[in-house]
Amino acid sequence: MTDEKPHVVIVGGGFGGLEAARGLRKAHARVTLIDRTNHHLFQPLLYQVAMAGLSPADIAAPIRNLLRRQRNTTVLMGEVVGVDANARRVLLADTALSYDYLILATGARHSYFGRDEWEPHAPGLKTLADATAIRRRILTAFERAEAEDDPEKRAAQMTFVVVGGGPTGVEMAGALAELARHSMAEDFRRIDPTAARIILLEAGPRLLSAFSENLSAKAQAALERMGVEVRVGARVEAVDGESVTAQGERIPTGVVIWAAGVAASPVGKWLGAETDRNGRVKVAEDLSVPGHPEIFVIGDAALREQDGKPLPGVAQVAIQGGKYVAGVIRARLEGRPAPPPFRYRDRGNMATVGRSFAIAEVGRFRLSGFFAWLMWLIIHIYYLIDFENRLLVLTQWAWAYFTYSRSARLILPDCDRDAGSPPETRSKERSA
Amino acid sequence: MTDEKPHVVIVGGGFGGLEAARGLRKAHARVTLIDRTNHHLFQPLLYQVAMAGLSPADIAAPIRNLLRRQRNTTVLMGEVVGVDANARRVLLADTALSYDYLILATGARHSYFGRDEWEPHAPGLKTLADATAIRRRILTAFERAEAEDDPEKRAAQMTFVVVGGGPTGVEMAGALAELARHSMAEDFRRIDPTAARIILLEAGPRLLSAFSENLSAKAQAALERMGVEVRVGARVEAVDGESVTAQGERIPTGVVIWAAGVAASPVGKWLGAETDRNGRVKVAEDLSVPGHPEIFVIGDAALREQDGKPLPGVAQVAIQGGKYVAGVIRARLEGRPAPPPFRYRDRGNMATVGRSFAIAEVGRFRLSGFFAWLMWLIIHIYYLIDFENRLLVLTQWAWAYFTYSRSARLILPDCDRDAGSPPETRSKERSA
Repeated sequence: MTDEKPHVVIVGGGFGGLEAARGLRKAHARVTLIDRTNHHLFQPLLYQVAMAGLSPADIAAPIRNLLRRQRNTTVLMGEVVGVDANARRVLLADTALSYDYLILATGARHSYFGRDEWEPHAPGLKTLADATAIRRRILTAFERAEAEDDPEKRAAQMTFVVVGGGPTGVEMAGALAELARHSMAEDFRRIDPTAARIILLEAGPRLLSAFSENLSAKAQAALERMGVEVRVGARVEAVDGESVTAQGERIPTGVVIWAAGVAASPVGKWLGAETDRNGRVKVAEDLSVPGHPEIFVIGDAALREQDGKPLPGVAQVAIQGGKYVAGVIRARLEGRPAPPPFRYRDRGNMATVGRSFAIAEVGRFRLSGFFAWLMWLIIHIYYLIDFENRLLVLTQWAWAYFTYSRSARLILPDCDRDAGSPPETRSKERSA
Repeated sequence: MTDEKPHVVIVGGGFGGLEAARGLRKAHARVTLIDRTNHHLFQPLLYQVAMAGLSPADIAAPIRNLLRRQRNTTVLMGEVVGVDANARRVLLADTALSYDYLILATGARHSYFGRDEWEPHAPGLKTLADATAIRRRILTAFERAEAEDDPEKRAAQMTFVVVGGGPTGVEMAGALAELARHSMAEDFRRIDPTAARIILLEAGPRLLSAFSENLSAKAQAALERMGVEVRVGARVEAVDGESVTAQGERIPTGVVIWAAGVAASPVGKWLGAETDRNGRVKVAEDLSVPGHPEIFVIGDAALREQDGKPLPGVAQVAIQGGKYVAGVIRARLEGRPAPPPFRYRDRGNMATVGRSFAIAEVGRFRLSGFFAWLMWLIIHIYYLIDFENRLLVLTQWAWAYFTYSRSARLILPDCDRDAGSPPETRSKERSA
């Protein structure tokens, strides 16, 4: 019986995919949500996991559990490798699923502007595994510095370079400065963590270009007060295991974090659809793929212009897109007329700089400083989907605020190329 | 100036090593604590990390941070590979440290009774990496079962075998039963997690042999009420990637957890000292190594008899040993007479069975049931060293108690041989 109902397949359990699934809760359809991981991730706080302020479980929840009450929905952990749009089938590594409607919410990865050889030296931040890998590199760099006798090598280990002055880069540089200058200040005997250098490189003329010039200047000043060296107009020319080169200067460094380019997942290739140079699929006004009214692309994987500008790659665009597409599919299933074209309602834009400064822009309203940070904190905790997570994160944040401590400062082994190995192994690798 | 002070080197940052370091806080000595990880681990709650009830950071704290106020103490993250007792040097992979006093607190690993080929199929539980690997295997087994069409293979994926009926095995079997029967009960569509089989194998005649027969029978009954199949007198004869064989019966299974034998770390080999068959070093009445009054072995790595019985491998023995040895060294440094021989004060023994049943034995006083569990909970939370950890763990436990939820149910990728790979890879490995 259930097999006669139309089948909606959603690929990706991020903000967009999850919202689409929820919007189909009462639809007369079978819904299958596929994700390569078993969890939904609250990405806006991912940098806190990388900076040892939060644990992975604080900002992630099993997708199965979030959708457990939704009886028409099946969750599948698996890796989608392609779409056969003519046969209406989603291809997984060892199986395939037929669909009547397909929602692709596969998000984005970071891009190295064609220099993929930089990736092993400069990890980006999109998944929990990325975050724990970056955390391990940062903490291991301090351990190496403490064990290092050569003053130059020691200084290099204590130099951290963040590439990209968007919200993620700014948040990471700020959190890194706090980690070094406060949380770890007393922990070492030979090195002084407060002497760590944190360098933020931005190729464009200013940080946080999505904000007004005024707020962007305030954010930069706040970062500089925290001890971050901000360099704008600094395009990265080279990255290797020991240094970053920008503006002709070679900066010896132990850890490089990539927060620059973003590239959509390979959805465009799967569909053979038209994309922009970042790989985002150009979608119609109902977020469907031209020529395939049964396939929708939402969130970071989609390109949709509104008022002459492409919609930004932020959570709200994905959430509103997911909700909208669920409405379109429900209307078709129920034979109702299609809803009006998708229109993104901008609810404002925020970025945080360290533990007590943020900037916010909501329409013409602009705010910066401690109250913007409080607003940022409340909104983010509120949006953390699972109640337990919200409570825990609140506890941990409040505690960290008063003590500057970091409870999640663990170095765990991993298969990450070099970050998990002890210093001597790395030196050998380097000289090899 | 500081270099003229005697140098005390402690190897291992577990309960014993940490307590020894703390006892030397005011000693006129330089103290160096070496650990291969950067964190101290609250091992009694490690099974909760394996069973997705707690996050690694809830039960671990950076050793540096715990000792940051102790200015005479340096913490070094590194792997000790040997000891040159004649030259009084501790050997690390790429360097060596001279010592005047050496405290070896290196703990124990699990032992496979000479069948090391079983290890990849039946991981044990000693480190955070062990715990997250076991968690990943368990959660992945449910995902595989949900994706599996063959009923026999599906049943095998949902069969979990715990080997060893000591406190760790009992705790894991109980927690696993709760995870399957309550926390995940509604999460799947094709499988019924409450139908999962949890089998606990014990080679001896009864569970928890350190307790009285009466309490041990009560614990078994409690486990059986939770749906665990307890088999005593069941020695494991074979383990491979697909099954466990015991008492001549081959049990097809997706996950085997090893909670049986314990072997001390290679301290005995480093020293060329006399050991028992588990590798524990036979120590003198002041816990020093015979012939080397400047070397001490404490905790699980040591063998010391008291009243005709070897001291058990529990946290309290390590803690009291660490404190005692610090006192012996302080006395020698200050030219005072040596303290009386080490004597372990047994403060009682507890084991927990699931979320509301425990057994406790303090001298002749015996307790079982919910109040024993409450006592267990309060004691364990109290002993969690870091205040923040205690608070968080309390929050999470209280919440889990009322809701049966598991916040840490994440599958994260790892280099673990097969647990992290998707089902199809594993099938291939198996048929290969």
